[in-house]
Amino acid sequence: MSANTIGAMFKVTSFGESHGRCVGTIIEGCPAGLRISEDMVQKELERRRTDQSSFLTQRKEEDKVEIVSGIFNGFTTGSPICMIVWNKDIDSSTYEKITFTPRPGHADFTAYTKYGGFNDYRGGGRFSGRITASFVMAGVVAKKMLALLSIEILAYTVEIAGVKAKPKTLKEIKDNVESNSVRCADLTAAQRMVEAINKARDEGDSVGGVVEGVALNVPVGLGEPVFDTLEGELAKAIFAIPAVKAVEFGSGFKVVGMRGSENNDAFIVEGGKVITKSNNSGGILGGISNGMPIVCRIAFKPTPSILKSQSTIDLIRMKPVTLKIRGRHDSCIVPRAVPVVESMIAIVLADHAIRTGLIPRVVKGVNLDR
Amino acid sequence: MSANTIGAMFKVTSFGESHGRCVGTIIEGCPAGLRISEDMVQKELERRRTDQSSFLTQRKEEDKVEIVSGIFNGFTTGSPICMIVWNKDIDSSTYEKITFTPRPGHADFTAYTKYGGFNDYRGGGRFSGRITASFVMAGVVAKKMLALLSIEILAYTVEIAGVKAKPKTLKEIKDNVESNSVRCADLTAAQRMVEAINKARDEGDSVGGVVEGVALNVPVGLGEPVFDTLEGELAKAIFAIPAVKAVEFGSGFKVVGMRGSENNDAFIVEGGKVITKSNNSGGILGGISNGMPIVCRIAFKPTPSILKSQSTIDLIRMKPVTLKIRGRHDSCIVPRAVPVVESMIAIVLADHAIRTGLIPRVVKGVNLDR
Amino acid sequence: MSANTIGAMFKVTSFGESHGRCVGTIIEGCPAGLRISEDMVQKELERRRTDQSSFLTQRKEEDKVEIVSGIFNGFTTGSPICMIVWNKDIDSSTYEKITFTPRPGHADFTAYTKYGGFNDYRGGGRFSGRITASFVMAGVVAKKMLALLSIEILAYTVEIAGVKAKPKTLKEIKDNVESNSVRCADLTAAQRMVEAINKARDEGDSVGGVVEGVALNVPVGLGEPVFDTLEGELAKAIFAIPAVKAVEFGSGFKVVGMRGSENNDAFIVEGGKVITKSNNSGGILGGISNGMPIVCRIAFKPTPSILKSQSTIDLIRMKPVTLKIRGRHDSCIVPRAVPVVESMIAIVLADHAIRTGLIPRVVKGVNLDR
Amino acid sequence: MSANTIGAMFKVTSFGESHGRCVGTIIEGCPAGLRISEDMVQKELERRRTDQSSFLTQRKEEDKVEIVSGIFNGFTTGSPICMIVWNKDIDSSTYEKITFTPRPGHADFTAYTKYGGFNDYRGGGRFSGRITASFVMAGVVAKKMLALLSIEILAYTVEIAGVKAKPKTLKEIKDNVESNSVRCADLTAAQRMVEAINKARDEGDSVGGVVEGVALNVPVGLGEPVFDTLEGELAKAIFAIPAVKAVEFGSGFKVVGMRGSENNDAFIVEGGKVITKSNNSGGILGGISNGMPIVCRIAFKPTPSILKSQSTIDLIRMKPVTLKIRGRHDSCIVPRAVPVVESMIAIVLADHAIRTGLIPRVVKGVNLDR
Repeated sequence: MSANTIGAMFKVTSFGESHGRCVGTIIEGCPAGLRISEDMVQKELERRRTDQSSFLTQRKEEDKVEIVSGIFNGFTTGSPICMIVWNKDIDSSTYEKITFTPRPGHADFTAYTKYGGFNDYRGGGRFSGRITASFVMAGVVAKKMLALLSIEILAYTVEIAGVKAKPKTLKEIKDNVESNSVRCADLTAAQRMVEAINKARDEGDSVGGVVEGVALNVPVGLGEPVFDTLEGELAKAIFAIPAVKAVEFGSGFKVVGMRGSENNDAFIVEGGKVITKSNNSGGILGGISNGMPIVCRIAFKPTPSILKSQSTIDLIRMKPVTLKIRGRHDSCIVPRAVPVVESMIAIVLADHAIRTGLIPRVVKGVNLDR
Repeated sequence: MSANTIGAMFKVTSFGESHGRCVGTIIEGCPAGLRISEDMVQKELERRRTDQSSFLTQRKEEDKVEIVSGIFNGFTTGSPICMIVWNKDIDSSTYEKITFTPRPGHADFTAYTKYGGFNDYRGGGRFSGRITASFVMAGVVAKKMLALLSIEILAYTVEIAGVKAKPKTLKEIKDNVESNSVRCADLTAAQRMVEAINKARDEGDSVGGVVEGVALNVPVGLGEPVFDTLEGELAKAIFAIPAVKAVEFGSGFKVVGMRGSENNDAFIVEGGKVITKSNNSGGILGGISNGMPIVCRIAFKPTPSILKSQSTIDLIRMKPVTLKIRGRHDSCIVPRAVPVVESMIAIVLADHAIRTGLIPRVVKGVNLDR
Repeated sequence: MSANTIGAMFKVTSFGESHGRCVGTIIEGCPAGLRISEDMVQKELERRRTDQSSFLTQRKEEDKVEIVSGIFNGFTTGSPICMIVWNKDIDSSTYEKITFTPRPGHADFTAYTKYGGFNDYRGGGRFSGRITASFVMAGVVAKKMLALLSIEILAYTVEIAGVKAKPKTLKEIKDNVESNSVRCADLTAAQRMVEAINKARDEGDSVGGVVEGVALNVPVGLGEPVFDTLEGELAKAIFAIPAVKAVEFGSGFKVVGMRGSENNDAFIVEGGKVITKSNNSGGILGGISNGMPIVCRIAFKPTPSILKSQSTIDLIRMKPVTLKIRGRHDSCIVPRAVPVVESMIAIVLADHAIRTGLIPRVVKGVNLDR
Repeated sequence: MSANTIGAMFKVTSFGESHGRCVGTIIEGCPAGLRISEDMVQKELERRRTDQSSFLTQRKEEDKVEIVSGIFNGFTTGSPICMIVWNKDIDSSTYEKITFTPRPGHADFTAYTKYGGFNDYRGGGRFSGRITASFVMAGVVAKKMLALLSIEILAYTVEIAGVKAKPKTLKEIKDNVESNSVRCADLTAAQRMVEAINKARDEGDSVGGVVEGVALNVPVGLGEPVFDTLEGELAKAIFAIPAVKAVEFGSGFKVVGMRGSENNDAFIVEGGKVITKSNNSGGILGGISNGMPIVCRIAFKPTPSILKSQSTIDLIRMKPVTLKIRGRHDSCIVPRAVPVVESMIAIVLADHAIRTGLIPRVVKGVNLDR
């Protein structure tokens, strides 16, 4: 049972609750000799923070990371790395009221039933989006490892509330994504997305969207068929992000309307390297990376926490009740999900890079500096 | 590294190659005392056979299963069950020609690179659709276990080559799916799908499609957040089926255009049981089954093996060449994928039923009959 | 790679270093609804503390446990339980000198080589006996779970420095073990053990010994052949305790001189229950518990940290040097190992109790008290 | 639940029963490009066969191996290797009588209880020594992998029925072990061991013994603390061999009477390499190989199947009965266990060699020969 752990060689274990003491992560399998600092991790944690713009929740999460094991003199030691973000500024009072009246679209009902009511329900507890902080902390280490192989991970918003971004060049993506609050490379679309989110929020409602994730410079050979295909491993990791309802690779659902002769990517040689002319496969053939960019798209549902009245039941009396959620909630989770998507992709690729033998157990020669 | 094994408690290991000696499966974690016979398994294997209709490949696979361990006097023993289908009627000669000229859309290039050319390339070897016979054999045991909990698994074609099926009732689905060669419950659409496949085949081309999978009577509580969510586990298992490029649950990609107030499924009480009014969640909330039908849709790409000429390269000379594939190939894999999708869903749910403590280690009391 | 995790269903992950920030543990797979408090854990941590008697190390470890996740309102939630003991009162200065001159009998050389010198060497780092605090914390939860099945775990010293204890009754063991500093049920032998330890210490030397571990009221059926035999699983867990060099079950090495007719334990019926007349098997047949007490004996080597001068090498210059270890060290680790042995046995049995389906996922009915 | 699988990266799965259709093994994680033939495997299987001498069982096991997957053109492909030995010459009639009268010292009672009577009891079924054929087949692949690193594995008998062998040089061991039916390097002791076994057999009884296992040329760094120590992993693997009751490393139980100053192995430099002057540690420090020979000793109990009358019970009537076992049984299992011990050591070291990054995913460059 690896419910709270992901990865075969690069293993990430998540722990903690939204309104408990902390959210934390244990990272195993990282080679010794990798330089990791709290600052690096802090920077990524900031990217998923809540106060970037008005439509995100108002809770002022401090999210200050503490590395409590596995790093010595600034380098990984080969031992498990434990990172913790302590919870502060917590107001659980609004949640007390919904204990026995499960919020539609949330895990309240399933968690209550599965754990016999012993689950920490405050703020969604273990099912809160806040748990993704544990993914992001691990993602920093994964990205650092992948940098040894020059692998780069990007994610960005391509659709929110029906507003679709136009395709952009890699340069535009890199330049624009962090420049706007919805993390979209198409700045015109970004503006309309913001408006759509604001409109939904003003109506006490919420909207969903699509994030695209890309991995560049991935060597040929990552992925372990028949069950640990790269698509399967990425999909599993990505579905751990709350609110994800669909994952597609390359042409995705579009393949359904294509002929084989259209969808097959012809092999060509370019600069002495085998590449494919098109990339309908999304960089994966037979579950194994083929050297082209890995491309996936992920559908996020509209945030289930809305201010509009909703129908639910009282679990004790088994009677219908009307639920009115108060408190602080994102009207659209998509922009904050962007760094989380990057983290999940990085974690899976880091694991497979080790499994494929591309990462040594010690990053550089013997440390004479100790 | 569990590359060839899936499942935490109900574990399925696949082995074998398309044109090697056999395709086989090892099934572990099954309780003792479950009645399993070769006939049961044979029946399911027939469903994925090739000779059901003219547009499927002409290889007469006999697919006769042999159970070589784990069953004694007709019952499971609690020990690993090994089932084998021996390969017969194999003509690998056409494959010899494509050894160093990878077929577009296939795993030839990635497998060659990953395994240094030592992979068994005949008929796609380990990457062949034939490997799904090992999934189907395990699926039979999984379905039998799930029957203890009255869980039922269905799959059926909902789109091929752009032809979409109309939604049908559960009764229509059960009545119609096995009545036509494309396994579609909408008989009018089915006819048009057949025509579209035939047209593509006549043009030396192929088409893709969508399979919908459903699990009925699933109890509340299956799924193990944060990483072993039911969506994530199902997606990973389903991506092990060759040609899958996308998986969605419930409203799937449609959530992107929905408001939270639309997409949230209201809880109601019906017959003393908590259910939801709509099922946009696809039966899963917070990664855990909520008691509603689990619904997923899976996109299959058009079969990459087409008779049309294609551009590829000679891996030794690193020069472009034109490839002409001969031999026997499905023009549309979708109908044959239907029982495989059922098997993958069954395998994942069986695993989680055990993990949740719903399946005893021995199915019934002590066997006094030995 | 589960290097820092043990268990298939009841999973224990250890992290932390001797002189780093903390030593911690993550406990997964524990059912929801189990009452666990910091006090319970604290009590067991005290048992492995250092200042019980003069021959144990003088470092005043405070070992104050903090439970930072997985417990809510005093009960387990079904989510991972993280417990941490923060390191205090640390003086690493003496260790700085031995960085490149590995201490004989310690992991200094192997860790240095394996991790390229990036390992945290202070106080033995990850290889310190202090890491067993993470085992003991998990052991408390395991014992609590086993109490649901009335399983009881005991351990006690049976030999130190050649002084062997006489066999004692269960009552004597329970009465006497915690009454003396060497945790031996034979009080006469205990006195002589203390003297032997003191003598060794006065000579700047150290001694080893044997701990016997017992599990009572274990139901028939724990253990999962062929590889996860109860002996194999217990042995693996026990070898994680530093200084263990041998493990035997039941008659152990004595079986070598016995005939089959002597060693076979005859089955008899007593009080309507099948038991065996003797217990040479140590409660395990075919890798599965047979209902008799599980009995194992574990050899601990003399503490490698001794004050006497020792020959070693300078790893940089590759030249012989004489090493003189200073600092605080136990002259005999055996008494402090007793609660650790109990913990390892408890962890393994708890895991197998879950695997055998004897522990529900929720300890009692739905919690209406929240 | 990895009950039938051992290893994290080099994974061995055992299946089959003593009197079922076959005994088999699946080997995963082996690099592509390793030359493996049925002949190699056959040779090792012969070493554990039964008809080497009069005191071993008379069943003429043919043990003809078939490799049914994972090998192509004589080389490993990187896919799972399945090897099968079909059972022949089976006479289960004598076992029918003891179905409900469990044999003392056997797994009959525990298996019956655990699996509710559904276990295949014929010939011990899954608990038979015959299952070790699946270990030996995997051991051949493991040894072949270890040969890439020049690691060599040896095992030999050092004690039977109280007769102890004198220590012998490595050359004497290699020369003598296969020259006598008890696989003992001390030929004088070997003769007395044979006599002791014959005497026991003539009296309808059986005897136990000790096998010593050694691994030579093991590089520094194998083993993954804190839980996957080399001792722990080896012990777990070795306890999978039926009849093992104790495992010790290096000085083993002797450490109990030693001082730290005696037991610590001084580091010295020899030929530019760090070694230890003595080898009390058995080649393992802190759970990690230190470059010295790995040495372990394993106690085997006397074969529980004896011809003498024994007391047991009728499980249905819960009444005492006298049991008289007939059929073919070894009077001493030790000599046949020797190649099995070698196999278990090889399997564990192969796994850790991969985990440590010492084995590439492809043994040599790209195969141009296909």
